[in-house]
Amino acid sequence: MTRFSRRMGLARRSFVREILKVTEDPSIISFAGGLPNPRFFPVQELSRASEKTLAEAGAAALQYATTEGFPPLREYIARRYGRRGVRVSPEDILITNGSQQGLDLVGKALLDQGDVALVERPTYLAAIQAFSLFEPRFHALELCEDGVRAELIATALREHNPKVFYVVPNFQNPSGITWSAARRREAASLIAKSDTVLVEDDPYGELRFAGQAVAPMGREGDGTLSPWAVLLGTFSKTVAPGLRLGWLCAGHEIMERLIIAKQAADLHSNGFAQRVLNRYLADNDVDGHIARIREAYGRQRDLMVHMVETLFPAEVRCTRPLGGMFLWMTLPEEISAIALLEEAIKEKVAFVPGQAFFTDDCGANTMRLNFSNADEPMIEEGMKRLARVFAGMRTPGKGR
Amino acid sequence: MTRFSRRMGLARRSFVREILKVTEDPSIISFAGGLPNPRFFPVQELSRASEKTLAEAGAAALQYATTEGFPPLREYIARRYGRRGVRVSPEDILITNGSQQGLDLVGKALLDQGDVALVERPTYLAAIQAFSLFEPRFHALELCEDGVRAELIATALREHNPKVFYVVPNFQNPSGITWSAARRREAASLIAKSDTVLVEDDPYGELRFAGQAVAPMGREGDGTLSPWAVLLGTFSKTVAPGLRLGWLCAGHEIMERLIIAKQAADLHSNGFAQRVLNRYLADNDVDGHIARIREAYGRQRDLMVHMVETLFPAEVRCTRPLGGMFLWMTLPEEISAIALLEEAIKEKVAFVPGQAFFTDDCGANTMRLNFSNADEPMIEEGMKRLARVFAGMRTPGKGR
Repeated sequence: MTRFSRRMGLARRSFVREILKVTEDPSIISFAGGLPNPRFFPVQELSRASEKTLAEAGAAALQYATTEGFPPLREYIARRYGRRGVRVSPEDILITNGSQQGLDLVGKALLDQGDVALVERPTYLAAIQAFSLFEPRFHALELCEDGVRAELIATALREHNPKVFYVVPNFQNPSGITWSAARRREAASLIAKSDTVLVEDDPYGELRFAGQAVAPMGREGDGTLSPWAVLLGTFSKTVAPGLRLGWLCAGHEIMERLIIAKQAADLHSNGFAQRVLNRYLADNDVDGHIARIREAYGRQRDLMVHMVETLFPAEVRCTRPLGGMFLWMTLPEEISAIALLEEAIKEKVAFVPGQAFFTDDCGANTMRLNFSNADEPMIEEGMKRLARVFAGMRTPGKGR
Repeated sequence: MTRFSRRMGLARRSFVREILKVTEDPSIISFAGGLPNPRFFPVQELSRASEKTLAEAGAAALQYATTEGFPPLREYIARRYGRRGVRVSPEDILITNGSQQGLDLVGKALLDQGDVALVERPTYLAAIQAFSLFEPRFHALELCEDGVRAELIATALREHNPKVFYVVPNFQNPSGITWSAARRREAASLIAKSDTVLVEDDPYGELRFAGQAVAPMGREGDGTLSPWAVLLGTFSKTVAPGLRLGWLCAGHEIMERLIIAKQAADLHSNGFAQRVLNRYLADNDVDGHIARIREAYGRQRDLMVHMVETLFPAEVRCTRPLGGMFLWMTLPEEISAIALLEEAIKEKVAFVPGQAFFTDDCGANTMRLNFSNADEPMIEEGMKRLARVFAGMRTPGKGR
């Protein structure tokens, strides 16, 4: 009888990843995944970058390397923050295997069993998963359409003294919600007076369809990084997720511990991939590339929102995200999204029931729809099927 | 004031990696690192494999992928185990970021605070580091020239009921020691009757210079994997470490938890690199390649052992490893390897003091020398310098 660690009792395989297995059937129209659209992956450009990297750097691209990451890539990330008004240096950047590893390292460096982790409600499923293995107690704060209300944050900080507050302030996964500048300022001023570390995850920030970018919460008035903030970023949504490259951004005190955790976790991220990515970023019009992704995802969001508004009754609500990849639907109280999914799969369309994104098992009548990885005809057809299934469940005797 | 997790109080940056920073000075002859020799990295072949991978698989090589790893690569690893007489299926293989991540995932899945982790004495430094973050108590068993004595293992299993027993049975890092077949059988039969999981790390197994390969401890008589064993492997020493690709091999019950831990850690390892590696392995004479590495490292070991035997007094002992990358020197009791290193660095030669490989701060008079990443003239010159420094410390008034 193998004796596993206590933390494994809390962990299960990701519900979403299990649904994704069902949706591998190519005849299913899937709004379930969190996949960026592969038609924007720069296949040719990365092929050229690979060739050039090995021709130029040779064996050095394949040797063990520093834990912190490839210096020119860290410089690139710091410069890009600078363009968005955040003044950080390359020393504040640690390269990780996607932002998922960032969550793992943050959990490792900060969370002991029983510590409180403050999260949004709903929150990103894989963050719950990563943090769970460090056995915190989750406390979730209701997310309104412009962020979490300051009173809720103030009370939670006072009553629970959380170790971390985890937020996805831009086009959140799963809700699509974006925090307003005012809500961010309120939150920042409360956190600044506490002992809580803000963990600000921003995988979608570059994929804004409308309006102006809003500064991160963890930025001081002079543009420097707040000492109580850790920013997470990734190239998964702007270049390609298969490279598994993202980063953590933090000041010296926190960074020192994150580097130790990274060293123990896997010594360093793939050095070949870091150099290939850096070469790609240097040789190509990255902004033009991102603009094309934004434009396409924006149209796909428009269509999906339009389909919800026209095919579903008014009692079904959905968010209208300003960017990102997800839209959030709220069904009438009495409708279970899990029951809807079961019927929907028979009609060959899939999504993720919202319950997976709550730490308290609520949200039975909510669901997350991905609009990035489906073209417009698929969105149209898939939403029609979903509306039919929904209508069928509303027919007397067919609801649950 | 940031409140870090309790586990971070136990962790520090790797001493070895800090020494490696000193030795970045190219004028230093370094026997300190654990680097494979870059002249064997298949740069051209990996460049062709990259190009082919992106031409054939296109965007699929860059999308999110399954946590378990790229199926053909898992099949390759299972087949290669088969050739060595270990019958496992691809489902028993989980692709990791080098074997370092394997250690992290094993620690996560098995170790709670205060659990006992049994290790060899000395043991692999980065395993101590990875496990430390799960706060076990270490119990170290003296490593003799043919492994750990069965009486020691029996007593430790009975008295400490360890969660794991971590071993590197082939050409261990740091000692270079290889467990004999008899010692392995004794250990296996004791572990089989216990509740302890054997964590069998084999990064160097393919780099054998002399004698016959010995079966893993975690192999049953019929060739199947023992249910109480986890095997770790890596491509870092046979192909290139910069790809950060290794694997865990375990039966269903343990594998299920390892997959959950991997999912939370970083979703999956770099899919592009996995496909490039798989393409490289399919298209090239890997056995011929490994034979060339083996032949060169064997010669380098011969020379280094010869230099120790001829330049140092008889009271200085060293192992004569049957493979791998490291040799272990034991100095007279009163000589501190740290003091020797300080003098050696002035003479531009470096190694790792052995103390870093003990969980109980012993081994002050031991040191690890790497022979893989230096050519023969460098080994000759470096060992001459080291012998001079040693002789200087033995001169009356210059010892400590």
